[in-house]
Amino acid sequence: MTVIKLLNKPKLVNPIFIEGLPGVGNIGRVSAGYLVEELGGKKFAELYSEWFFPFVMLHDDHRIHLLKNEFYYVKKGSHCNRDMIILTGDCQSLSPQGHYDVSTKILEFVKKFGTKEIITIGGLATGELDDKEQKVVGAVTHDELLKKYKDKKLDFNAGKKVGYIVGATGLLLGIGAEMDMKGVCLLGQTAGYPIITDPKAAEEVLIVLSDLIDMKMDMSKIGKRVTEMEEFIKKVEALQKKALAEITKQSKSGGATKEDETRYIG
Amino acid sequence: MTVIKLLNKPKLVNPIFIEGLPGVGNIGRVSAGYLVEELGGKKFAELYSEWFFPFVMLHDDHRIHLLKNEFYYVKKGSHCNRDMIILTGDCQSLSPQGHYDVSTKILEFVKKFGTKEIITIGGLATGELDDKEQKVVGAVTHDELLKKYKDKKLDFNAGKKVGYIVGATGLLLGIGAEMDMKGVCLLGQTAGYPIITDPKAAEEVLIVLSDLIDMKMDMSKIGKRVTEMEEFIKKVEALQKKALAEITKQSKSGGATKEDETRYIG
Amino acid sequence: MTVIKLLNKPKLVNPIFIEGLPGVGNIGRVSAGYLVEELGGKKFAELYSEWFFPFVMLHDDHRIHLLKNEFYYVKKGSHCNRDMIILTGDCQSLSPQGHYDVSTKILEFVKKFGTKEIITIGGLATGELDDKEQKVVGAVTHDELLKKYKDKKLDFNAGKKVGYIVGATGLLLGIGAEMDMKGVCLLGQTAGYPIITDPKAAEEVLIVLSDLIDMKMDMSKIGKRVTEMEEFIKKVEALQKKALAEITKQSKSGGATKEDETRYIG
Amino acid sequence: MTVIKLLNKPKLVNPIFIEGLPGVGNIGRVSAGYLVEELGGKKFAELYSEWFFPFVMLHDDHRIHLLKNEFYYVKKGSHCNRDMIILTGDCQSLSPQGHYDVSTKILEFVKKFGTKEIITIGGLATGELDDKEQKVVGAVTHDELLKKYKDKKLDFNAGKKVGYIVGATGLLLGIGAEMDMKGVCLLGQTAGYPIITDPKAAEEVLIVLSDLIDMKMDMSKIGKRVTEMEEFIKKVEALQKKALAEITKQSKSGGATKEDETRYIG
Repeated sequence: MTVIKLLNKPKLVNPIFIEGLPGVGNIGRVSAGYLVEELGGKKFAELYSEWFFPFVMLHDDHRIHLLKNEFYYVKKGSHCNRDMIILTGDCQSLSPQGHYDVSTKILEFVKKFGTKEIITIGGLATGELDDKEQKVVGAVTHDELLKKYKDKKLDFNAGKKVGYIVGATGLLLGIGAEMDMKGVCLLGQTAGYPIITDPKAAEEVLIVLSDLIDMKMDMSKIGKRVTEMEEFIKKVEALQKKALAEITKQSKSGGATKEDETRYIG
Repeated sequence: MTVIKLLNKPKLVNPIFIEGLPGVGNIGRVSAGYLVEELGGKKFAELYSEWFFPFVMLHDDHRIHLLKNEFYYVKKGSHCNRDMIILTGDCQSLSPQGHYDVSTKILEFVKKFGTKEIITIGGLATGELDDKEQKVVGAVTHDELLKKYKDKKLDFNAGKKVGYIVGATGLLLGIGAEMDMKGVCLLGQTAGYPIITDPKAAEEVLIVLSDLIDMKMDMSKIGKRVTEMEEFIKKVEALQKKALAEITKQSKSGGATKEDETRYIG
Repeated sequence: MTVIKLLNKPKLVNPIFIEGLPGVGNIGRVSAGYLVEELGGKKFAELYSEWFFPFVMLHDDHRIHLLKNEFYYVKKGSHCNRDMIILTGDCQSLSPQGHYDVSTKILEFVKKFGTKEIITIGGLATGELDDKEQKVVGAVTHDELLKKYKDKKLDFNAGKKVGYIVGATGLLLGIGAEMDMKGVCLLGQTAGYPIITDPKAAEEVLIVLSDLIDMKMDMSKIGKRVTEMEEFIKKVEALQKKALAEITKQSKSGGATKEDETRYIG
Repeated sequence: MTVIKLLNKPKLVNPIFIEGLPGVGNIGRVSAGYLVEELGGKKFAELYSEWFFPFVMLHDDHRIHLLKNEFYYVKKGSHCNRDMIILTGDCQSLSPQGHYDVSTKILEFVKKFGTKEIITIGGLATGELDDKEQKVVGAVTHDELLKKYKDKKLDFNAGKKVGYIVGATGLLLGIGAEMDMKGVCLLGQTAGYPIITDPKAAEEVLIVLSDLIDMKMDMSKIGKRVTEMEEFIKKVEALQKKALAEITKQSKSGGATKEDETRYIG
């Protein structure tokens, strides 16, 4: 079960849907987070899912937080001449099947608000740490978008660089195209492993994004904001790791789940 | 499929829902078990689920017992000035997905009886065996509960101690909040691994719980009761371990499930 | 999806449902198979399920056979004074979840024919090869059955011997009881690993079963019949093993499923 | 969720359904691909599924491609005296359960167009590289087909050679028979591991297929076509491998999925 809880129902005109969830370099997550903060995005819906990790986190030492993805909207104005829906959140699905289910639910939801265009943001692990300027890499669902964006600072050679896009960043576009939505993916290039949030790559993506949708955005606070967000992202990651270790140990001493048991369970 | 079978339908007024299932130190399980016995809780519903271990246990050497969670109610009276629903049982879900499904079904069920408040009981593995008094650790779904309970013997610093709560103890509160129920989690501190039922931690939790909901309860039999319950809990754990070992061996000699097979099956 | 395909709809009066599927010592499988052959059981329904191994077998070198469970009926007559439904088949579920789903579907199906009583047949691995006569071990869903069968050659001490019953043999009784069906489980004692079909244990179970339901059955052909059935059972097991090995190798050379991949997939 | 998207609805008369998806030697995939190209098959439906790998591929370096299976039709004419539906595609299901689900959805779909006969194409890994002519191996759902095809160049001894058929190639026939469709499976013999696309085996299968359904087809381009297709097939395989490695590494540095985690998750 994947549940999307509508907190309030904004009237949006032809909104563009922008996704940025945790992943390689957390570029999607921090880019979307910065967008929401700088543009004053208003949360209007939350998604939680049986495909997420089965725990709650503790905020401010005492407040219980269910893992969620969150939908924000931004109305058009001086910063941008069109309405936006921005999706960000704590995590992605734990299982392959979950990725399909969660992505489909997200698309059905944003389509109801009139969404016809999608921009997803992710990272591309180059495995190198170099100082050369690295262009944001792009991929599209329809060739017409390639023409539309051909003069932007985007390398449309994702196929050569990586060949595939895993999870929501890819599936939202792939399934979206089946649902008559067109889209482009922006992949910031980052060194890769170990995963470290890469604010520079996020900034580069945001510059391209601003150019793509004629958005005016103050980039000066990105360093500070990313540092703040990073702390939270790291916490989620660390807790998942710790929770997992505990579950494993627990299992070994006779709890409901054991290594052998799961071998059987498959 | 998770099935809740209603045995009889009590009329309850604004019941508080208290959960205690097997987990760290089995503190939830034995606390809820003691509550049911001391307050004369009456069973009114049973839950079983495809997410539980696929076996039946044998009681009294010959009677077949499907793994279950059980709902009891206690009407208000001299012991407590409000109605209660208490959930306890044999086990929790085997899989992450199952935790979400079972928790959601439980919450939908108790909500029908007018539940607006939840208390879940669990354990927190400190990894230390010390004699110092260790306060019960708490976490809440809403800040107003923090104010309400601020003078109780509860350390609202679960975030510092652990950061997350796995399984029903966490999800019932996290998902419960989405369904407009408020709640608090009581975590008894226990040494942790290997899992040993910790009656002292259970007693401490029960003292805090009594204080929280103005409950009068004779604590003198807790040692004896826990010893009784422990035997059963240990049996369930041991059987799961043994069943698992058998399944694994069986598989290796050509049964339907093999180590390699499950690697494929994923 | 678990599908039960009705081939024809017999009129049955208060039929007793007898289950024997592959498992420890294949005692259930061969006992049920012998029952069907000796009593001239007529197949009236077939079950197949997404929880079974995803392959077809080849019979007579060229004919494709989907893995199935099969329902037979026997009308009352000189051999037995009541109608019977007998379930046997190629395999059980591959996953824990599947066991619950398949068992529930089976019970819903037989209940429609008026079934109120269930007898499941399984094996109990003692880990010993001895010549002493080993009584069939029993377990029941309701204490009244213990009284009813107390003079039969059944040791109602399964709890001491094993403590649990895995898969259909256990769940059909456990879930059956929730659906107002009563039942008894007959466990033939067998040495256990490696799994070898144990015709002697099957014979002992059939003798007890005959006594339980006042059935007259010629036992003289059991050795021959079991030998025939054993060949097929071994084939299924061997094919699953081989299929699995192939899948695994295939995966390693770049197929859709790899060891690492399944680690991710979970 | 498995979705079949109808692009246009052809009127077909008693079409024969021919399946060729990736698998051993990719014989099915390249045979079906060649059929579509040579006979000018028109795509009329696409299938995608949550049971496929959760990523999108990049074509022509920039275009996003959701993993799919594709349905083509060919109307009867000079090449063949009956209508055909041909299924080919990028991949098969990742999980056992998925194989059943996807196969069932495919069969329900083609049945709506009046399909009563099925031919599936696969490979049989002999583990040997020899130059002797190796006949195509066959298996059928109904004995009448054995008679019908007994003079064709088909060895109906698949049972001796392999004993089972995994995935869509087997299940489409096994489940198809339950849905009143009859069918035959053509297995090209190939050396096997490591998987290398085997155009010679594909050619042999196509010759037998042409004979079976009185199809006239120019075989002269098969070498060239297979080479083209092979590049794409290899790419899909390589990307899945690479994507997987990335996911694994990502997990180890704190992402949502870790080796230990999946041990727990089962």
